[in-house]
Amino acid sequence: MVVIMKPNFTPEQLQEAIQAMKAGGVQVNISKGSETTVLGAEGNAAGIDQELLEQLPGVEKVMRVTEPYKKANRKFHPDDSVIDLGGGALIGGKKLAVIAGPCSVESEAQITAVAQAVRESGACALRGGAFKPRTSPYSFQGLECEGLNLLQKAKEATGLPIVTEIMGTEYVELFEECVDVIQVGARNMQNFDLLKKLGKRTTKPILLKRGLSATIEEWLMSAEYIMAGGNQKVILCERGIRTFETFTRNTLDLSAVLAVKSLSHLPVVVDPSHACGKAWMVERMAMAAVATGADGLIIEVHNDPKNALCDGAQSLTPDQFTDVMGKLAAVAPCVGREV
Amino acid sequence: MVVIMKPNFTPEQLQEAIQAMKAGGVQVNISKGSETTVLGAEGNAAGIDQELLEQLPGVEKVMRVTEPYKKANRKFHPDDSVIDLGGGALIGGKKLAVIAGPCSVESEAQITAVAQAVRESGACALRGGAFKPRTSPYSFQGLECEGLNLLQKAKEATGLPIVTEIMGTEYVELFEECVDVIQVGARNMQNFDLLKKLGKRTTKPILLKRGLSATIEEWLMSAEYIMAGGNQKVILCERGIRTFETFTRNTLDLSAVLAVKSLSHLPVVVDPSHACGKAWMVERMAMAAVATGADGLIIEVHNDPKNALCDGAQSLTPDQFTDVMGKLAAVAPCVGREV
Amino acid sequence: MVVIMKPNFTPEQLQEAIQAMKAGGVQVNISKGSETTVLGAEGNAAGIDQELLEQLPGVEKVMRVTEPYKKANRKFHPDDSVIDLGGGALIGGKKLAVIAGPCSVESEAQITAVAQAVRESGACALRGGAFKPRTSPYSFQGLECEGLNLLQKAKEATGLPIVTEIMGTEYVELFEECVDVIQVGARNMQNFDLLKKLGKRTTKPILLKRGLSATIEEWLMSAEYIMAGGNQKVILCERGIRTFETFTRNTLDLSAVLAVKSLSHLPVVVDPSHACGKAWMVERMAMAAVATGADGLIIEVHNDPKNALCDGAQSLTPDQFTDVMGKLAAVAPCVGREV
Amino acid sequence: MVVIMKPNFTPEQLQEAIQAMKAGGVQVNISKGSETTVLGAEGNAAGIDQELLEQLPGVEKVMRVTEPYKKANRKFHPDDSVIDLGGGALIGGKKLAVIAGPCSVESEAQITAVAQAVRESGACALRGGAFKPRTSPYSFQGLECEGLNLLQKAKEATGLPIVTEIMGTEYVELFEECVDVIQVGARNMQNFDLLKKLGKRTTKPILLKRGLSATIEEWLMSAEYIMAGGNQKVILCERGIRTFETFTRNTLDLSAVLAVKSLSHLPVVVDPSHACGKAWMVERMAMAAVATGADGLIIEVHNDPKNALCDGAQSLTPDQFTDVMGKLAAVAPCVGREV
Repeated sequence: MVVIMKPNFTPEQLQEAIQAMKAGGVQVNISKGSETTVLGAEGNAAGIDQELLEQLPGVEKVMRVTEPYKKANRKFHPDDSVIDLGGGALIGGKKLAVIAGPCSVESEAQITAVAQAVRESGACALRGGAFKPRTSPYSFQGLECEGLNLLQKAKEATGLPIVTEIMGTEYVELFEECVDVIQVGARNMQNFDLLKKLGKRTTKPILLKRGLSATIEEWLMSAEYIMAGGNQKVILCERGIRTFETFTRNTLDLSAVLAVKSLSHLPVVVDPSHACGKAWMVERMAMAAVATGADGLIIEVHNDPKNALCDGAQSLTPDQFTDVMGKLAAVAPCVGREV
Repeated sequence: MVVIMKPNFTPEQLQEAIQAMKAGGVQVNISKGSETTVLGAEGNAAGIDQELLEQLPGVEKVMRVTEPYKKANRKFHPDDSVIDLGGGALIGGKKLAVIAGPCSVESEAQITAVAQAVRESGACALRGGAFKPRTSPYSFQGLECEGLNLLQKAKEATGLPIVTEIMGTEYVELFEECVDVIQVGARNMQNFDLLKKLGKRTTKPILLKRGLSATIEEWLMSAEYIMAGGNQKVILCERGIRTFETFTRNTLDLSAVLAVKSLSHLPVVVDPSHACGKAWMVERMAMAAVATGADGLIIEVHNDPKNALCDGAQSLTPDQFTDVMGKLAAVAPCVGREV
Repeated sequence: MVVIMKPNFTPEQLQEAIQAMKAGGVQVNISKGSETTVLGAEGNAAGIDQELLEQLPGVEKVMRVTEPYKKANRKFHPDDSVIDLGGGALIGGKKLAVIAGPCSVESEAQITAVAQAVRESGACALRGGAFKPRTSPYSFQGLECEGLNLLQKAKEATGLPIVTEIMGTEYVELFEECVDVIQVGARNMQNFDLLKKLGKRTTKPILLKRGLSATIEEWLMSAEYIMAGGNQKVILCERGIRTFETFTRNTLDLSAVLAVKSLSHLPVVVDPSHACGKAWMVERMAMAAVATGADGLIIEVHNDPKNALCDGAQSLTPDQFTDVMGKLAAVAPCVGREV
Repeated sequence: MVVIMKPNFTPEQLQEAIQAMKAGGVQVNISKGSETTVLGAEGNAAGIDQELLEQLPGVEKVMRVTEPYKKANRKFHPDDSVIDLGGGALIGGKKLAVIAGPCSVESEAQITAVAQAVRESGACALRGGAFKPRTSPYSFQGLECEGLNLLQKAKEATGLPIVTEIMGTEYVELFEECVDVIQVGARNMQNFDLLKKLGKRTTKPILLKRGLSATIEEWLMSAEYIMAGGNQKVILCERGIRTFETFTRNTLDLSAVLAVKSLSHLPVVVDPSHACGKAWMVERMAMAAVATGADGLIIEVHNDPKNALCDGAQSLTPDQFTDVMGKLAAVAPCVGREV
C-alpha cells in the first residue's frame, strides 16, 4: 500500500497516517520529495483499514498494491483449490463439474425425474430452489422446507449431491444438516451477517453468486468473510451483471472467470441460464465459459419448461441438456479439461 | 397489463395466457388484429405473476400499465403518509425532518455529545451505527449490542428517537424493543427474509435505503414486502447509486425523490453524506434535496471527524451542521416547507 | 504522479519508467523501500502520457495526484471564468443564465413566438435545434440550414443570442458565422476531430454536453481538447447520465455541478429537460440545480408542446416557464445568486 | 407496435395517436376494453416515429413488437451476409476471419514486419491505427496521413487488405480511396453525420464498433444509418462495454454476439484486446468468442509490445499470435467453423 500525503500536511498528520498503517501490522517507508511525500507499507497490507486511512486529514490518496483479501488470494495459496461436493463430485480439478436442475422444486415427481435425467447426461450435482428470492412479495416464494425434503428424496434416488439457496441466517443449521452445497444468491452477496454465520457454523461448500453490480474485488471480499470465519470451501459463481442491455436478463461477464482464476485459488462456475434468461443461448454461452477456463457450470433443466413455476423460459429440456453436454465434451479438451 | 401474443400462437397457448392472467384476479379483454393479438387485463393487475406470464410459450411481450406494488402505490393512497418517529418527530408533513449523528457509535461521551449538539441545531432524531456493514471482514464492525446501549443513553439524555441499522433477522426482536426507527442498509434492500420479518414482527418505522444499483420499482417492491407483512411505516431513503463516476462515493439521484413522491405516498429522505463521501459537498446537496421536495435528510455529524472510526471524511462538525440547518431553513419555504 | 514498480523490475525497466516520466517534463524522485519502489514526479505531470507509462513492463501501477487537464483546471486559474454569450448575456457570474427554447426549430412563427415569450420571462439566450441527432435514420432530422436561418430571424426579432447544436466538422465555418453559442451534443463529447476543429477554428463559446456515460474527468478532458486548440470559452452542460433507472430518460447528476466547480474554473449549466424527459419534473430539478450552484440552466420551452416535432413531453409552455423563473428567483438568493 | 392510451383520453387524442401511426405507413387496429384502450399497428412499424408518439398527450405507453431497423434486420434478410474485405478475405462465411496488427502504425519497418508475421500465422487482414482517438489532447495522436501511406506499403508487401479507423467526415474520400475496411470507433458510434456520409459516399466495408455504453438496438440503429445511406457492407465489432469492473479495461459482452446474430444478418467480429486491455487474457477470450459463434476476431499484435507507442500492454507478440491461431483452430470445429 502506498499513501500520498496532501501538499501541506502537518507533522501530526504524518504521524497519524503512519500510526494507522502500523496498526495494520506493517512497517512504513517514508519518501519525501520536493513536492510529494509518499508512505509505503512494508509487509502484508491486508490488515490495514483503508477507509480509515483515506479519511485522515493529511492524506491525499491511498493506493493498494496488494489485494485486501488474504485467504482467497492466490498469492498465498498458489495451487487451485479442489472442493468435494459429496457423491464423488469434485470441483476445481481437471474434470468439468456440471450442476443441473430446475429453478424451483415443484413436486417429488418433477425433481426426481429431472435429477435422474441430468445424472444420466453427466451432471455431478442437482440444483433446485426451495426458498426463492423474488422481487415481488406476491410471486411464488418456493416450497420452502417441503422443497428441501423433496430435494433429499431426489438425492436418495440418484446419489447426486444437492445445491440449493439459503435466504437467511435462521436456516443455517437446517442447511448444514440436509444440503450438500449451500448457495448464496446474488442479492445476498453482501449480506454480511449471513456470510459470517456461514463461515463460522457450516462445514459444507458455499456457492457464492456474484452480486448484480459487484466488482470482482467485492465478490472476493465476500468470499473472504466466509473464509475468515473458518469455512474455506467457497465456490464462486459468475451469473451475469446488470448492464444497460435488455436483450439478455443480465450480461454474462466471462472475462471475470479469467480474472478470478488469476487472483484467487477458488474454483469458479458459470451460470449461463440466469445470465441470459433465454434457453436457446445457454449452449453457446456454456461452451464459451468452458473455453475461458471455468471449473464448472450450473444449468437450468426442467422436464416441462413451459409449465415451470419459475424461469421456464431459460430452462433446457433433458434432451437439450444432453446435447449441451456433448458440446461441452468437444470444447473441454481445447483447454485441457474433460467432461 | 397488456400481453402481446407471438405471431403463430396456438389456441392452447392463448388459453394458457388467459388463465395465467385470470389467476391474478383480473378479467381479460382479447383483441385480435390481422397481425397481432393483444390481451388486456381489466382490473387490478398487481396480483399477476408477470415473470410466469412472460415465459409462457405463446407470449411475445408483457407490458405493465399499472405498477406491481399496491400498498406503496399512491394511486390507492393519494394522501402523503406521515410517520411518527417518536419524541414528537414526524416525517412526511410540512416540517422537514432532519436525522443526524455519527456513522458509528464509538463511546458514550461521543454519542451523547453529538446527540446534544444536533438536537440544539434542530435535528429531530439521532442516527448512529452499532452494527456496521463493511466490505472487509478485517474492518471495524461496530460496537454491536454495546452500541445499542450507548444510543439508548443518548436518547435518555436528549429525548431524540434513535435510528440505527439492522443487519439480520436474528436482531429483529431486539431492535423492536430498543430502537425507534430500524434502518435497512443498501446492501440488504433485497434481503427478502429480513424484509418479511420486519413486516410481520415489528411496529417501528423502517428506514429503507435504496440499493446501490436498484431501480425505483425494485425499491418500492422492497417497501411492498414490508407493507405486505403488516408494517405500513416505511420511510424511503435515497443514498446515491453506483455509476461510473468516482469523484463521489456514489451518485445522488435527486430526481428519484420526485419520482417516488409521484408513484408512492411514502415519505422520502435523502442521505447526502454517504452519497457524496465528502463533507464539503453535503450542504449544497442537502439544499438541493430540499428543493426537489424531500421530506427529510439524514446527515452525518461527528464531534471529531478526523478521529472518527468510520467515514470521518464525510462527517460535518456540529458547527458545520448548524450552518447547514440555517441554509435548509432558507430553502425550505421555496417549496412550501419549514425547518 | 506516483509510479509503483513491479516487485522484480530490472534496472532497464526502471530507466524506461524514469525516461517516460521525464519526457513529460518532470523531475523524478526515486524511493526504494525493502518491498516497493516508488517514483514520484516533481513538477506538473499533465504532460506525461499516462497510458504509455502504465503499459511499461516494469510498472505495476500509476496514480495521478494532479489532474491530467491544465487549461480547464481551477488550480491554475483560480477565478471563475465568465463567458460572454453576446446580447448582454454573461454566464459564470452572479446572475443566473437561463437559456430556453424548443428542442427543434420548426417554423418562423414557432421559433419567434417562443423567443419572444422566453425573453419576456427572463431568458438570456435562445436554444433551438436545427440539426438533430436522432437514434433512427427514419426520424425527423431537423430543418438543418433552414433552421439556422429561422434562428437568426428569431434573434433579429428579440436580440437573444442563439445556441444550437453542431453535428460535424463540415459545419464549423457556418456556425462560426451565424451562431452565438455552438453546442456539442452528448454523443459527440468524444468526437475528437470536432473538438479539435472547434478549438482551432472558432471564437464562439462552446456549450459542451457531458456524454451519456462519461466520467467528469473525461468531460473535462474534452473541454481541454477545445481549449488546447485555442478557444478558451467552454461552457459545461450536465444533461443526465445513463443509469439503470428508466423512470427518467437519464439521471441528472447534480453532484457533478459541485465537482466540476471545484475542479475547474469553467461555468456549468444544467439541462433538466433532457435529463428527466418529463415536463412536470423540470421546475423542481431546476431549483435543485440552482441550489447546488449551477451557473445557468437550459430549459425546453415550446408554444405548443403536444404538437412539437421532437421531445414535446419534456417541453414547458411559456406560462409554465414563467412560473419556473419565479421559483428560480426565490431559490437563487439562498446561494448568493440573482436571476 | 402497440400503443396504450391513457385512462381518460379524449376522442381528439385518439385521432392524434392514430394519425401518428398511419403516418408511419401502417393500418391501425383499435381495441377498447372497459379500462384500457390499445392501438395495434398492422404492417411494418419501422417507419413510425416512436418518440413522437410517446409524447402525445393521450398516450400512456408505446411498445414495439418489431424492431426499429429494417435493412439490418434478419427478419427481412434471413441469410447471413458475407462481406468481401478484398485480397480474398471474406467475413461471415464458414471460415473464421482474423484481423490482426498493431494498435498504432509507428514506422514502415514495424507495420511491414507485423503484417508479414500475422499473414504467415493466418490473419486475413491487417489492422493499424493511423488516426488515434485519445482521451487527452496531449497524448500521441497517431501518424495520421503518413500512417495511411505506411499501411499501403504493408499491403503491397503482403497482399493483406487494411483496416483502419476514420475520425471524421473530412477523411471519407481519402479512406474510400486508400483503405480496404473503414473502422468507426466506439466513441463515434453515434456520430450520425459520419455514419450518413459513410453510407452515401463509400463502397468499402465499414467495421462499426459498439459504443462504450450502447445497447444492441442502438448499435444496430447505427448500422441502419450506414445501410439506409446505401452502403450495405457493415461488419459489427463487439469491443467491450463500460461496467463497474476495473480489472479489465472494459467488459467483453460475448452474449451480444449471439444476440446480434439472431437479430441481424450482419457479420460480427470480437476485439478481445481492447476489451480486456491485458495481453494474457486475449487467447482465452478469443477462444470463447469463437465458441459463441463470432464470424471473426480483431487482435492486437506488435513486434515489440514493450516499446509500443500505444496499448502495448494488450498486444501479443507474433509468436503468441501464432499460438492463439492454433487454439482457435482447435475450437472452431466445435461450432462448425474452420480457421
